[in-house]
Amino acid sequence: MNLRVPGPTPCPEDVLEAMSRQMINHRGPEFKELIVRVTERLKTLFQTENDLFVLTASGTGVMEAMVVNALSPGDHVLGVSIGAFGDRFATIAETYGAQVERLAFDWGTAADPKLVAEALEKDPSLTAVMLTHNETSTGVTNDLQALAAALRGARPDVLIMVDAISSLGSLPCSVDAWDLDFVGTGSQKGWMVPPGLAMVSISTRAWQAVEQAKMPRFYFDLTKAKDFLEKSQTPWTPAVSQFYAMDVALNTLIAEGIGGIVERHVGLGEHTRRGVKALGLELFAADEASASNTVTAVKVPDGVDGGALNKMMREEYGVVMAGGQAKLAGKIFRIGHLGWASVEDLDATFDALRQALPRLGYQLPEAAQVR
Amino acid sequence: MNLRVPGPTPCPEDVLEAMSRQMINHRGPEFKELIVRVTERLKTLFQTENDLFVLTASGTGVMEAMVVNALSPGDHVLGVSIGAFGDRFATIAETYGAQVERLAFDWGTAADPKLVAEALEKDPSLTAVMLTHNETSTGVTNDLQALAAALRGARPDVLIMVDAISSLGSLPCSVDAWDLDFVGTGSQKGWMVPPGLAMVSISTRAWQAVEQAKMPRFYFDLTKAKDFLEKSQTPWTPAVSQFYAMDVALNTLIAEGIGGIVERHVGLGEHTRRGVKALGLELFAADEASASNTVTAVKVPDGVDGGALNKMMREEYGVVMAGGQAKLAGKIFRIGHLGWASVEDLDATFDALRQALPRLGYQLPEAAQVR
Repeated sequence: MNLRVPGPTPCPEDVLEAMSRQMINHRGPEFKELIVRVTERLKTLFQTENDLFVLTASGTGVMEAMVVNALSPGDHVLGVSIGAFGDRFATIAETYGAQVERLAFDWGTAADPKLVAEALEKDPSLTAVMLTHNETSTGVTNDLQALAAALRGARPDVLIMVDAISSLGSLPCSVDAWDLDFVGTGSQKGWMVPPGLAMVSISTRAWQAVEQAKMPRFYFDLTKAKDFLEKSQTPWTPAVSQFYAMDVALNTLIAEGIGGIVERHVGLGEHTRRGVKALGLELFAADEASASNTVTAVKVPDGVDGGALNKMMREEYGVVMAGGQAKLAGKIFRIGHLGWASVEDLDATFDALRQALPRLGYQLPEAAQVR
Repeated sequence: MNLRVPGPTPCPEDVLEAMSRQMINHRGPEFKELIVRVTERLKTLFQTENDLFVLTASGTGVMEAMVVNALSPGDHVLGVSIGAFGDRFATIAETYGAQVERLAFDWGTAADPKLVAEALEKDPSLTAVMLTHNETSTGVTNDLQALAAALRGARPDVLIMVDAISSLGSLPCSVDAWDLDFVGTGSQKGWMVPPGLAMVSISTRAWQAVEQAKMPRFYFDLTKAKDFLEKSQTPWTPAVSQFYAMDVALNTLIAEGIGGIVERHVGLGEHTRRGVKALGLELFAADEASASNTVTAVKVPDGVDGGALNKMMREEYGVVMAGGQAKLAGKIFRIGHLGWASVEDLDATFDALRQALPRLGYQLPEAAQVR
């Protein structure tokens, strides 16, 4: 199968092999070496000297970890949303008692740094801002650098919490240079590792917030993670296999370097957008400049059944795409191109679309018709 | 290495092989089949027709899941503890605002069903009881059947929440017959699967509690897990690899049957206790009748340095034992014999102890001296 969902992403052979290694004592010397090696290299790719922790959870877990460690019930926070995952971040904070001022941008668009900064300026009671770096549900990437700069301009000490789940390890994200307080990501994205680990960095400013934060937390308590990392352990039994896999994936990623990683994803993103547009299809991103280089959302053409398209692509052409989430169900399909993805994988996807779409009533543009 | 910690436990070859399978779409048809097959067979081994969910987390995560789904801040609950994990269960509940009446028994002893029932009867405001089935930190197994019966006798509708992390899949635990409301376990124990999954069953009575329960929850929200399981999915991206592994491990466990699984662990437990006693060592369990059949805690003999013993065992004999936790650090060592453990693994452990202990100043009994 050509797995083109935006996570879990396909894993390279050596990463999968590492998954099958025998267990070790997670409180013993081998694991100590492993966690140190993994953590240090993750910091390199996060471009941070902040503390960084690896949790056993999926992406939603790390969003919750950021919320419960940063905030107290009753806190006023700004929840900037450009899609389903931005909404989820806000909902998690509300679930734990935060008062979230929701600033929603139309799905398909990026957040406007000016409007975000204005919202923050308007309400001095806001102490934190929740941002999505790359919105997996709409295939749109926020200009995180500009957002962070605008926020810092408006309020230098505001707490900036970033869902970087489908961006970090793929798209540019300079945690320290952009002065980001909490930044979370998940192993099953650009990291090319099976799901099960979530990674989060936390700044000095963020630690001050943690000390004040009163939301209840135990499993996701980063203070416990810090205490245990000082002895090169995790507080609870970690997903040891995914640690092995991350260790191997990091060999590749570190060798490639941040520049190479970013360039690769830019190339894959551009190739995907060219490919779908050549089929006469429309990007869901309102402005191509903010279209994501990790996942492309494409409008299901009028008259075509989106569910039937995804089913046919999978069953008859071996291409597994993602559908739309929430209010976009049936209206878009999504092609993941993060992590271990190649131009060939994407070309095979376009070929399959070129064959499947006409069978579902879509008229291909002249130039795209099967020769 | 002879990995003799009480989890993560060694995994059989076919389970490890399954860990290295390529990723699939967690919202697609292959995963649907997988989660249905895994969930149904887990229910067989839980001996339950209750709902059962597989979470991506380690054991502490499932303890938290039980607490936050069952309780509201301010609830009065009875926290029965016979060791570090019983204490942890109570602490989690307190962290989320429950008023925990702690009923602690001496470490090394089991909980007395009569005293537990009396504590419940004495305080009609108690609505739930938290129990540890097998206390990994002390190597003692509670008589869960007797405890549940005594509690039901005292208060038929009390909520019974069970940490069965290191018991289920190894020791007798009849969830429905014993009328247990929340029962949680973890993949890295008797299940012979790497850490990363936690499984929890929830009774009809427990669902009524969930409806009333006001503790905040999102990642561990079992209502969301139920909604998604209805479409054979998980709410968040699951640890797909551990699902593959669990699927394979369940082939073995189901073929063996509950009777076989229990008998195997009884045999391993008895063999371990015989082995350590033959070396003149003392069990930490005050009463051998309650000594655990998944992990044996042994007193470090007077004059021997517990840390040095574990280090020598690992470095010079290739046997990885666990030390003591919390107040037992340095005072006991622990031998895990759950899951994929054999009499040969244990004999190798005794042989190593027979050689290591005298080097650390211990006088072996005549009969145990190396021939």
